[in-house]
Amino acid sequence: MTDTVIDVPVEPATLAARLADESAPDIVEALNREAPEVAAAILLSLPHERAVEVLDQPELDCAPDIIEMLPRDRVASFLSGMSADRVTDVIREIEEPGRSDLRARLDAETRGAVDKLIAYPEESVGSIMTTEFVAVPTTWTVGLTLDYIRKVERTRETVYSIFVLDPRTGALAKAVPLRRLITGNPEDNILSVAPNRRPVVVSADASRDEAARLISKYDLLAVPVVDASNHVVGIVTVDDVIDAMIQKQTEDVQRFGGMEALDEPYMSINFLTMIRKRAGWLCVLFLSEMLTASAMQGFEGELEKALVLTLFIPLIMSSGGNSGSQATSLLIRALALHQVRLRDWWRVALREIPAGLTLGAILGTIGVVRIVIWQKLGFYDYGEHWFLVAATVGTALVGIVLFGSLTGSMLPFILQRVGFDPATASAPFVATLVDVSGLVIYFTVALVILRGTLL
Amino acid sequence: MTDTVIDVPVEPATLAARLADESAPDIVEALNREAPEVAAAILLSLPHERAVEVLDQPELDCAPDIIEMLPRDRVASFLSGMSADRVTDVIREIEEPGRSDLRARLDAETRGAVDKLIAYPEESVGSIMTTEFVAVPTTWTVGLTLDYIRKVERTRETVYSIFVLDPRTGALAKAVPLRRLITGNPEDNILSVAPNRRPVVVSADASRDEAARLISKYDLLAVPVVDASNHVVGIVTVDDVIDAMIQKQTEDVQRFGGMEALDEPYMSINFLTMIRKRAGWLCVLFLSEMLTASAMQGFEGELEKALVLTLFIPLIMSSGGNSGSQATSLLIRALALHQVRLRDWWRVALREIPAGLTLGAILGTIGVVRIVIWQKLGFYDYGEHWFLVAATVGTALVGIVLFGSLTGSMLPFILQRVGFDPATASAPFVATLVDVSGLVIYFTVALVILRGTLL
Repeated sequence: MTDTVIDVPVEPATLAARLADESAPDIVEALNREAPEVAAAILLSLPHERAVEVLDQPELDCAPDIIEMLPRDRVASFLSGMSADRVTDVIREIEEPGRSDLRARLDAETRGAVDKLIAYPEESVGSIMTTEFVAVPTTWTVGLTLDYIRKVERTRETVYSIFVLDPRTGALAKAVPLRRLITGNPEDNILSVAPNRRPVVVSADASRDEAARLISKYDLLAVPVVDASNHVVGIVTVDDVIDAMIQKQTEDVQRFGGMEALDEPYMSINFLTMIRKRAGWLCVLFLSEMLTASAMQGFEGELEKALVLTLFIPLIMSSGGNSGSQATSLLIRALALHQVRLRDWWRVALREIPAGLTLGAILGTIGVVRIVIWQKLGFYDYGEHWFLVAATVGTALVGIVLFGSLTGSMLPFILQRVGFDPATASAPFVATLVDVSGLVIYFTVALVILRGTLL
Repeated sequence: MTDTVIDVPVEPATLAARLADESAPDIVEALNREAPEVAAAILLSLPHERAVEVLDQPELDCAPDIIEMLPRDRVASFLSGMSADRVTDVIREIEEPGRSDLRARLDAETRGAVDKLIAYPEESVGSIMTTEFVAVPTTWTVGLTLDYIRKVERTRETVYSIFVLDPRTGALAKAVPLRRLITGNPEDNILSVAPNRRPVVVSADASRDEAARLISKYDLLAVPVVDASNHVVGIVTVDDVIDAMIQKQTEDVQRFGGMEALDEPYMSINFLTMIRKRAGWLCVLFLSEMLTASAMQGFEGELEKALVLTLFIPLIMSSGGNSGSQATSLLIRALALHQVRLRDWWRVALREIPAGLTLGAILGTIGVVRIVIWQKLGFYDYGEHWFLVAATVGTALVGIVLFGSLTGSMLPFILQRVGFDPATASAPFVATLVDVSGLVIYFTVALVILRGTLL
């Protein structure tokens, strides 16, 4: 928070007056640039309905902090205007005793909905669903349904999908898109405009990614969330899914960069929290990488005899890491998009072996050419056995790039197999995995090629 | 293609019969598992309308190959049933002379639309927009508009946003959501249900990301694409944006992994194309990393005197790369989400300096402790000046992690400043940047601390 600098101090009331005509998402952008206490003051100066609309936007960065700064008597009326899923998101972030206090101030209906939603784990469909949807019995007509929608439109997150329920069991029978409904004859039964196919549904315990996959695959505006007996308990709308996709993408990029996901904007996250999230993986990687020091110690004798070998250690190690990082990024996405399944691992291995050999041969050739040119042009003297040194570097590169490609491509499969998200694999993690083995490959190749000459 | 294995050979006609009752997205998933010639045969056996629906899905992997395999007399009727933006996507991928031949077979209306769309560059809003939308003049009533929508519903990609145009100039006046339209009084003018605010619009030349950002920010189902005089030339729907987001995410992950984006599924991309896309960056990185060999050659004298220093080279270098990769991934996302702007670079630098120092101090301490333990417990003898070696490693780590964090965080700013997407920065690229300087930092620290003893 301390980083937020307000260039020209402006009274919150003035700012509020200036913002009152903007759309809620634009007000959110403006508030995100202010400290939470300023944002809270601005919200209080906005017309009530507009303030509720702003708090309802998931893009508002410090909503829990802002809510905690609002006078307790205003909070209840703000919260009861917001959608239940958003209230749940906010309350989830607030520490006790604030959380219980806020919960007690909700009206009975909102409190009931929030209590249900908050029970779902954070990565689940249940945690992003909303309970405000349109459902009608199969016995209704098109006209009756339209009249009903006109009445409840204001209080529903979406009216573009209408869920038609069996009046006896309450189970979901059909999902009717509004565009089909308006083409129907008002006197006809609603089933006359229902599609033939069974509606696409998702379970509340499924992961958010699953809801995103269904919405994107079937081009839906909302997917109904059902329980075991096919009762609709909520819906996930396309807006929620887009927000979840953007959040997931941020997490994936940060994880692939070799750290825990921040879950907060870079400029507003607490400094110590950020250090903690970065230091964790950095230490794990550092401790693993210490094995390289042990490996080098093991080859101390060879290093003393052929110091020239050390010159290429960084070059050779980084090539293994780079080819591994490429293969990992390819397979993370192929698995995420269901282009490749777990059982296809051997097909991938059969592609990566020739790919690794080809890429290794390309780099190996460049490496050999580099050494030959430097030697011949007199830039550096690699000793009398310079050609054997070049052969060692070239051969080691083929082995290391092959090993990197294979390790990097198999790692996402292994993670998925043991129940992790393949996207927890990171470029630094692959590089670390490959580094120790890279050193061993390099020195083993050297022992074979240089035995009797340098070693 | 050669990797596609059909476990049990089934007649295409049998498969088609089995698939006919499935939804189009499910048929697409099944076809993606087949070779293009089999997929083409299945498509021909499906009912015509269903085949068109399948070809209309952007998720169909090898649509251009499949189209080229269909008999020429059937192709025209397939293509004219598809949406213009999808036909454009497919035609764009087909090589000449096939492309001109297909274009000639289109009906005049589709050909006109395709000719317009294909002129837009591939990453632009124009390339993902559709020209099938609902527009009515400001003079119409709610009832008239609803009647019109009922008539054209089948032929429009979306009817959930209705664009209201000035009848004199044809310019966009308002965008009315269908949910508001149905709540209106049929006799009232359509403007009675229009929101007060000016509609959110995007230009056809803007990037796809901009359309995605607007749709996600304002929770829209479609954003109108306008020209300089505010005429609607097309719309981008939320489905298109989700598809574009998924594609962009794949590209970003692959680029961050240190390669050119594949643009095709891993299992179906041609082997040589894949090698080309991976080898390019791998060679660039390899050539840059060669500077490490030159740097090591420069410190040859020091290496000979203090071989013990080589033991920690991989450990120290990788720490710089890892901290850089973390910082880059953080800033790529912060810039993409507009949490940080170009002009904020110095604020970021002011955060990364203490962050780098803290993280460096943590790793440095672990490094020193490791050397002390190994020495004291007799696992390895780092020589009589072992404590100075430990001090060198610890100090170098602080410097290198600081340098890595700073370089990694500034790189995305520099890329954006010179007009590149910050997401072109990759973990291997940052690691390579940091490696050479890391070596120089390490040996410089060693020269200062060990002068007069080991050096």
